[in-house]
Amino acid sequence: MVEFKKLSECIEKKQEIFIDRLRRAVEIPSVSAEAGHRNDVFRMIDWTQKELEKLGATCEQIQNGKQEMPDGTILDLPPVLFATLGQDKSKKTLCIYGHLDVQPAALCDGWDSDPFKLTERDGKLYGRGSTDDKGPVMAWINAIETLQEMKVDIPINIKFVLEGMEESGSVGLDDILIKHKDSFLSDVEFTCISDSYWLGKSKPCLAYGLRGLCYYCVEISVCQQDLHSGVFGGTVHEGMADLCWLMSQLIDAEGTIKIDGIHEQVAPVTAEEIELYKKIDFDIDDYRNDLKAHKLVTDDKVKILMNRWRFPSLSIHGIEGAFAGPGAKTVIPAKVVGKFSLRIVPDMTPKAVDKCVIDYLNKLWAQRKSPNQFKVYPTKGSKPWLADYKNPHYQAGAKAIKTVFGTEPDYICEGGSIPVTLTFQELTQKNVMLLPIGACDDMAHSQNEKINITNYMDGTKVLAVYLMELGNCSS
Amino acid sequence: MVEFKKLSECIEKKQEIFIDRLRRAVEIPSVSAEAGHRNDVFRMIDWTQKELEKLGATCEQIQNGKQEMPDGTILDLPPVLFATLGQDKSKKTLCIYGHLDVQPAALCDGWDSDPFKLTERDGKLYGRGSTDDKGPVMAWINAIETLQEMKVDIPINIKFVLEGMEESGSVGLDDILIKHKDSFLSDVEFTCISDSYWLGKSKPCLAYGLRGLCYYCVEISVCQQDLHSGVFGGTVHEGMADLCWLMSQLIDAEGTIKIDGIHEQVAPVTAEEIELYKKIDFDIDDYRNDLKAHKLVTDDKVKILMNRWRFPSLSIHGIEGAFAGPGAKTVIPAKVVGKFSLRIVPDMTPKAVDKCVIDYLNKLWAQRKSPNQFKVYPTKGSKPWLADYKNPHYQAGAKAIKTVFGTEPDYICEGGSIPVTLTFQELTQKNVMLLPIGACDDMAHSQNEKINITNYMDGTKVLAVYLMELGNCSS
Repeated sequence: MVEFKKLSECIEKKQEIFIDRLRRAVEIPSVSAEAGHRNDVFRMIDWTQKELEKLGATCEQIQNGKQEMPDGTILDLPPVLFATLGQDKSKKTLCIYGHLDVQPAALCDGWDSDPFKLTERDGKLYGRGSTDDKGPVMAWINAIETLQEMKVDIPINIKFVLEGMEESGSVGLDDILIKHKDSFLSDVEFTCISDSYWLGKSKPCLAYGLRGLCYYCVEISVCQQDLHSGVFGGTVHEGMADLCWLMSQLIDAEGTIKIDGIHEQVAPVTAEEIELYKKIDFDIDDYRNDLKAHKLVTDDKVKILMNRWRFPSLSIHGIEGAFAGPGAKTVIPAKVVGKFSLRIVPDMTPKAVDKCVIDYLNKLWAQRKSPNQFKVYPTKGSKPWLADYKNPHYQAGAKAIKTVFGTEPDYICEGGSIPVTLTFQELTQKNVMLLPIGACDDMAHSQNEKINITNYMDGTKVLAVYLMELGNCSS
Repeated sequence: MVEFKKLSECIEKKQEIFIDRLRRAVEIPSVSAEAGHRNDVFRMIDWTQKELEKLGATCEQIQNGKQEMPDGTILDLPPVLFATLGQDKSKKTLCIYGHLDVQPAALCDGWDSDPFKLTERDGKLYGRGSTDDKGPVMAWINAIETLQEMKVDIPINIKFVLEGMEESGSVGLDDILIKHKDSFLSDVEFTCISDSYWLGKSKPCLAYGLRGLCYYCVEISVCQQDLHSGVFGGTVHEGMADLCWLMSQLIDAEGTIKIDGIHEQVAPVTAEEIELYKKIDFDIDDYRNDLKAHKLVTDDKVKILMNRWRFPSLSIHGIEGAFAGPGAKTVIPAKVVGKFSLRIVPDMTPKAVDKCVIDYLNKLWAQRKSPNQFKVYPTKGSKPWLADYKNPHYQAGAKAIKTVFGTEPDYICEGGSIPVTLTFQELTQKNVMLLPIGACDDMAHSQNEKINITNYMDGTKVLAVYLMELGNCSS
């Protein structure tokens, strides 16, 4: 095994080269959501392929069909880049997922420097994609390049799955992965994704869970067209009154979900989990202050974190069809559609949650005795993802973090979703790990997105050590 | 007194002249809401002044200041036209209010003929303003012209107040009327407004009441910016949950207002009123079918009409700040503003209603025990209007209707508001009457606005007889 001190020195020496690599990546404005930048996404994929080929990888671009934009124009979807580095049958195979497209950005949105010119200020590298997800993808390349230059035998085969549509819903990706389940993905032993963030600004972590999402519409229709409240108010059963009442029955004042049968689906919290949560480095006052929230639902660190990751939550998002503008309008809406969603956790499934939600709302509706027309339906459902964080794969990640940072990682989850995570787990039937390198304040998707130089460099080190640790890993 | 048969014949003979007068009025596209048509409003006022001068009226255009449009441009407000016809100190003075501006209209909105060319089809005169309110204004001119040609001595002095901003909120009108309280308006004994509609299609009516309006905003603010429901769901007290609950407590499933102290303010219904309502010609099945509503709050005619005119109603209009578009968005809104309003009736006042609403919501908010910030405030309040329908002025209107149609009018109210009605009553301290001539299906403000030729001609007759009846009227 390579000595860490030597590896670390080699990486440090290459800092300018690594920053330059990220600079070139950021300069390609590969915004997948904007038709005018679609060619840049293709260009970014081609450029990354060349970088991987320099490492000796065999690359293949998997064509990905067409996409109809909201204005009716048809665009070619960017291909998914498959790369293979090492085909030694005696070695296990790691699959690395990342994405090469970025969120839209413009200087006039409030950036302090051109979002497509990597700009260093105070030890931070500002630029769109610097942390989401070009920085981490470049860090993988940096890590492999360094190990190769050190003539180290990388003890695993590496496969890359790099897409160009992540910021636009990963259109087409699942289909391609499913098609390659028994070919490209057949020998994958571990999957690692570096496309999330630390919980804070200084402590590294590994993430082993994501909540799923069940989204619902509740439609109430009263009559054929919106009515003048002066002329008709007092004669019809108003749909907004029905809808506000229904939506008021979803959670109580403390945020507890009132829908029958939901809590019973949640896997019991174990004593071990509570210990794991207690160890997590998380400052609840910082969290509240960052939100500028008046008060959180609890001041208990473990409870707050479990509410974000370990328990379901229900949010009411809004109402379609009612007056939503500024000022005053005296309309009785003819039809209103309430929107709410549940974030779901193991052992909940969209199917079981749908049944509970629909049964509960039907029961409420029967109580209401309103003559209006009522309909409730799910619009999307995605399952939660949970990995076994005691799997040796996580131990390899933890050892790499311990080696670089001298500390054990926090084991965290994410409240939101990265749907491809579950796809990899289901298709490979092997362990998947989220190994973030960026900090919680990197502002992905926002103005002045950045990655700290220390995070980029230490992240490169962690990924390199992790690749080496996988050689000792019996999944 | 002129014999009705002779008057009726004279009016019938002039049908082509009267329709031609309305045609010329409709051809001036005096849309007050559109800057590009502002000159047409001025032109319409000038043209009407000439028509009134032909009758011998003395006219004055009262300048009305400036108006800032939403785009920042400043427009001259159209003047208010004051006209005086007869100054005989031995006669009483009637004030007639009407408006010369119209709602916007374009053929491409779905009109079957050019909205600014009066077009006859099946006994109906189609065109913007035909019924709202150029038809009724022309009918007043027709009536006076006919009486003059018959050499009848009109037993009253007549004053006109004709404005050009009614469809844009009557900007500036109240100020002008207040300024002329002790001059132009000082000798007004009755005010008559023909700017509303029959309750149905065949039975004439007089209207003696309008509901007032109290509009409220309820603001709940949670934190500084909208939050991702995956990342933050479960940790903050969500504002939408608070707001839906507050709004669910405003009315019950039957539409009954739950706000303490509201019902106590409503003037008790008298046995006489119930008798008056019972006599009203109103088909509840037609009403429900026209709305395409699944069911009304009651199938009782008197109750439905009282709910529209005689009792307060509360409507929840919508929510500002929450997701209101189609599709799915997983946001926790940072700040939401619920909007609702009450239509108010005698003896309610905006001041007393405001107090009840604010006290009630504060009480609910204290029960809720939410840490979010809460605010409730009224955005506008207008008083209800109620006239004494037993005043001899109404008897004069009723006699005119009896003479022309052979039937007693229905005595009705309107659920909406025509704010100038109350202004006239308060400034003159005399009786005000609404005397509509158009039918309920005239589609004011909508596509294919029309007035039936029979309504226009019979309306002219009613107005002429009413002018004569006022001579016998001791207000």
